[in-house]
Amino acid sequence: MKYPNKIKKLHHNKINYANRGMTLENDLNLTNSYYLENNIAIIYKKATPIQVVKINYDNKRHPLIKEAYFQTPSTTDYNGVYRGQYIDFEAKETKNKTSFPLTNIHKHQLNHIEKVIEHGGISFIIVRWTTLNKTYLLKGETLISYINNKKQKSIPLTFFKKEGYIIKENYQPRLDYLKIIDLIYRGGNNEKNNTLSKK
Amino acid sequence: MKYPNKIKKLHHNKINYANRGMTLENDLNLTNSYYLENNIAIIYKKATPIQVVKINYDNKRHPLIKEAYFQTPSTTDYNGVYRGQYIDFEAKETKNKTSFPLTNIHKHQLNHIEKVIEHGGISFIIVRWTTLNKTYLLKGETLISYINNKKQKSIPLTFFKKEGYIIKENYQPRLDYLKIIDLIYRGGNNEKNNTLSKK
Repeated sequence: MKYPNKIKKLHHNKINYANRGMTLENDLNLTNSYYLENNIAIIYKKATPIQVVKINYDNKRHPLIKEAYFQTPSTTDYNGVYRGQYIDFEAKETKNKTSFPLTNIHKHQLNHIEKVIEHGGISFIIVRWTTLNKTYLLKGETLISYINNKKQKSIPLTFFKKEGYIIKENYQPRLDYLKIIDLIYRGGNNEKNNTLSKK
Repeated sequence: MKYPNKIKKLHHNKINYANRGMTLENDLNLTNSYYLENNIAIIYKKATPIQVVKINYDNKRHPLIKEAYFQTPSTTDYNGVYRGQYIDFEAKETKNKTSFPLTNIHKHQLNHIEKVIEHGGISFIIVRWTTLNKTYLLKGETLISYINNKKQKSIPLTFFKKEGYIIKENYQPRLDYLKIIDLIYRGGNNEKNNTLSKK
């Protein structure tokens, strides 16, 4: 968990489409709002689990939490429904230029991704390489198989280029990851294939 | 939102199966844990959204939230995947004996249920009548149609008896609501139908 990001978000309520320095989280929130408003899919970021310890009830309608702690999420960041199917994914940023450290994804998150797939859901990760300004989608199946076979502590960028799908930044939807889901899980269509590239 | 319940939960970490006074939330958490452990479905209660205002970083690994507030959830309480399908529901308790007040469900939650159905997901509500010690499942479609047609401020118990499905309490899974989902969305099978009743 990167607390600083969650905090920064509090001061980011104004959406500035021209802002190229936006976090992956903000980009995905914009994208999911677009999907929701345009009746394309219902996908939300899960709330950060917080353990509440002390509450002040002086204001009964608006109780004040006086002591609380962030908890480690047991699943992934986002889930929802798209064309009847369950969608579940994790989003991560890395400043690295050549490899994505697997310490970024907890063991229980990997288990969750594996289980979702087993139960017929669609699960994947979205990784933004902030220094390179590139965002890739990697299927959960590919991720799990890499981890089980390679026994490495990181995934090289070359693997993302070969096995993943680049998500281009647009005006809106900002990061059209469902276009890639259409392609890889539904075969897509010509129009969609034309705007997609595997590199 | 019923804050007292959420708070009470903090002192309820030990699971006591013999406890007949358990809340619906606890019963559903037990049920969902059973589904997860037995590889039946992956369904979680969503974390309560909390707006964090002030954080003390003295302990960098375990930052202390000094000021925060509960936020109104914009969707429902539970979601996940079962046999490839998206599952999404709201759970409510009422002390009433003859009718369930619709003020218990926010307008944006109803919109969410309607949208989930539109997108091919399975959505419903589970209502526990605590005084009567009865728990019913009502399909989202039935709920929305009742609200649109009847223009009432509550749903009578008789409607739940006629149009809903009773969920019996068991040792485990505690509240086997997926058995009802099998029946109403998949036609069920003989074995399952025998243990289900519509009244």
